[in-house]
Amino acid sequence: MERQWRGKFPVNRRKPAVELGSGVRKSYREVIDVSWGDPHRAGVKPLSFVRQVLAACLYSELMDGDKLMVDVKQRAQRLLGTCAGGSVGSYCATAGIPQTLQSVSQYIMRRDGGVPCHPENIYISPGSQWALTNILKVLVNSEASPRTGVLIPVPCHSTTIISLTTLGAVAVPYYLREERGWALEMEELQRALDSAKGVCNPVALYMINPGNPAGYVQSRKSIQEVIRFAAEKKLFLLADEVFQDCVYGKESEFVSYKRALAEIGAPLSDSVELASFHTASKGLMGECGLRTGYVELVNLDPAVMKHINNLFSTNSCPILGQIALDVMVNPPQPGDPSYPLYLKVRHFYLPASLAQNVRRVEEVINSFPDFSCQPLEGGAFAFPRLFLPPKAIERAKEAGLQPDTFYCLRLLEEAGVLFSPGTEYGQKEGTYHIRFCIMTPSDTMEEILRRLSAFHEQFMKEFS
Amino acid sequence: MERQWRGKFPVNRRKPAVELGSGVRKSYREVIDVSWGDPHRAGVKPLSFVRQVLAACLYSELMDGDKLMVDVKQRAQRLLGTCAGGSVGSYCATAGIPQTLQSVSQYIMRRDGGVPCHPENIYISPGSQWALTNILKVLVNSEASPRTGVLIPVPCHSTTIISLTTLGAVAVPYYLREERGWALEMEELQRALDSAKGVCNPVALYMINPGNPAGYVQSRKSIQEVIRFAAEKKLFLLADEVFQDCVYGKESEFVSYKRALAEIGAPLSDSVELASFHTASKGLMGECGLRTGYVELVNLDPAVMKHINNLFSTNSCPILGQIALDVMVNPPQPGDPSYPLYLKVRHFYLPASLAQNVRRVEEVINSFPDFSCQPLEGGAFAFPRLFLPPKAIERAKEAGLQPDTFYCLRLLEEAGVLFSPGTEYGQKEGTYHIRFCIMTPSDTMEEILRRLSAFHEQFMKEFS
Repeated sequence: MERQWRGKFPVNRRKPAVELGSGVRKSYREVIDVSWGDPHRAGVKPLSFVRQVLAACLYSELMDGDKLMVDVKQRAQRLLGTCAGGSVGSYCATAGIPQTLQSVSQYIMRRDGGVPCHPENIYISPGSQWALTNILKVLVNSEASPRTGVLIPVPCHSTTIISLTTLGAVAVPYYLREERGWALEMEELQRALDSAKGVCNPVALYMINPGNPAGYVQSRKSIQEVIRFAAEKKLFLLADEVFQDCVYGKESEFVSYKRALAEIGAPLSDSVELASFHTASKGLMGECGLRTGYVELVNLDPAVMKHINNLFSTNSCPILGQIALDVMVNPPQPGDPSYPLYLKVRHFYLPASLAQNVRRVEEVINSFPDFSCQPLEGGAFAFPRLFLPPKAIERAKEAGLQPDTFYCLRLLEEAGVLFSPGTEYGQKEGTYHIRFCIMTPSDTMEEILRRLSAFHEQFMKEFS
Repeated sequence: MERQWRGKFPVNRRKPAVELGSGVRKSYREVIDVSWGDPHRAGVKPLSFVRQVLAACLYSELMDGDKLMVDVKQRAQRLLGTCAGGSVGSYCATAGIPQTLQSVSQYIMRRDGGVPCHPENIYISPGSQWALTNILKVLVNSEASPRTGVLIPVPCHSTTIISLTTLGAVAVPYYLREERGWALEMEELQRALDSAKGVCNPVALYMINPGNPAGYVQSRKSIQEVIRFAAEKKLFLLADEVFQDCVYGKESEFVSYKRALAEIGAPLSDSVELASFHTASKGLMGECGLRTGYVELVNLDPAVMKHINNLFSTNSCPILGQIALDVMVNPPQPGDPSYPLYLKVRHFYLPASLAQNVRRVEEVINSFPDFSCQPLEGGAFAFPRLFLPPKAIERAKEAGLQPDTFYCLRLLEEAGVLFSPGTEYGQKEGTYHIRFCIMTPSDTMEEILRRLSAFHEQFMKEFS
């Protein structure tokens, strides 16, 4: 039986790589897989500081030599001191190592310009998706009639939709306006809420900011509108903010829902219920393999918090992931011996460097008349729209495939580049998209765009 | 709000340590916490080979110097080759890294004298308990009437009971016979099954071998009896075998349920459904902090396997845990440069060394007329019985505590030793027990036994 991969893309995605391995001749030497939000997979180097600290925590003999900088050793020593028995191999409290909870809460306060944050409102979890599922378990009554509804954006990354439907909830879609840079519009939220009447009982509103799959960054004004809407409609806010340190739009700025809520002031700031999710898998760290995220809960009823406490006590987060999280929220500072190297590696993610990929993606895609990419402002993905000719759509349907899945499979087979089809994320009927990770070394991105351009031209000609 | 710890022991368990930290004078300098199955917490050193390989995988610059043995470097290089983009920071297939699944299946075949094992029947998970919960989700119909039942041993570690009841199943207890070394008796299994009539519909039988909390090791004959019973009653077998490499009884041998089933032969070997659980957290590795386990499934219907596949696709196991698992099932061999050091550290866990703790625990506890420990054969715990005087029981009830919880709290307060009370694991009515981890350095165990003896004598005198 075939094993499941994230998403619904057909499993023969591995075919070209397997064929290459068996000596089948192709126009490309290797498959470039940018279908995941996984920078390391795409060739990006990890941040050396976090890797050094983790290595030192695992194998403390490393602290004896001169292989590691003094601040790495100090950091490792401090973090080992937070582990039972001084070992990363021990159990910890299921909500997380207390000192790491403290570090995270201080980070959040700094990020939000001093808005208070309490460690007891934070739960560290094996991945942010796991935390989200736990919060959904509290919100969704699987036996209710009508069923529980959760408003979700379209497009939306697929794991959230899977979590929702597995729990027996109804996903109530609200469409982001692509033509306006994937804007979240209040009339559309209202329309979505109205559409739920007689179908389900909406209790929560889920947003992703910065976007995934679409690379938007919400403005402070938009966030405050959403908060007021949620307050008026008594909706719980689920803010997926895992790309918060990944903003490169010139005019864009990350504003957390927590901060925007505090800035609105009472009574909303004391009453609107909010869960905000973050992770070590995305953005600057890109350490997906560590499986570590956290959720901060705001304004929840103590009885609900108790229930959540129980849910989070069934599994704890890997200690190494928590150590990485601690480093993520406390990176080296100017003057620290590791700072120059840290800055060098981190540089890749900074506007100057990642912005080159972004500019090239927009430039190349928008140079085709039948291809269109909204301005990319944040997150790890581009989600351009494909205007497919009727013949291509027809051919896809003959093959029993969605048109953009058909496009992606042909792209993979003929150009050795692996994207995800828009159909995995939801899209307005009759529109087609592709998603790919833009966090790659710049020469990799050039190669991707070269292959994509040649393929796209050929594909469009074939079906014109 | 207080955060939840594993188990139900009152949260003021941390009080003495906090008081010591605040300068309160006690008869002890530090609290020894052996309430967890967590060797590193109790001062046991990790296996250096696995730590070195993990460190090298995280920070590949370590491979350049001469700090690491050549076989460590080779191992790290091979394992990095199994990670996407050559980084432990990337995502992997949710069932596990294919090469690790292959390694685990080869280990199982060697362990079972060649009984075939297929990687596609194995799922790597963030902890064995997570895997067990997933399998229970498939077995338990939360809406069925009568409810789904699962036979569980008494005593039984508490996380399984929590998982069961959270899913809406009924835990049907079968009592292990303490006087016969915690033997699993067929008449008792039959009695338990009969007791379920009219209450629930038993679909599965859960066993822990080697035992937790009680340190028994089941004989091949006993295992085969259980299998025949399950076959006759059409029960799914859930075999918790996480202490399989942790057997020190002179006459004891670990026999897996999988092997015993194969040895029975057809038709049972082709029909009895079995899930066997293992982990990197226990036994030789003791790497609880990595959150890594696996389950092997035998004789399951393909439709059920598909459902399980979906459940396991919601979360993947940390990559570093998988690397540790790969090392666990492929330890250094004689002739490898790392073998001498590996052997030295591993030595602690071998009969000659751990058996010293075991012998001393049995000796000291059985020297008291009101304290009794069955022969310890395997696992990580002792679970001796306390014969408490009526006055102590009365005093506990006045305090609103179970008598063994009262004993443990007093032990903690007065002697600075943290055990778990038997009431957390279930016990025959009117009997009282304590559980503690015996995987400690031998001087730590001497200190524990010294403090325990002095406290016990005083406590019994006080309430005589």
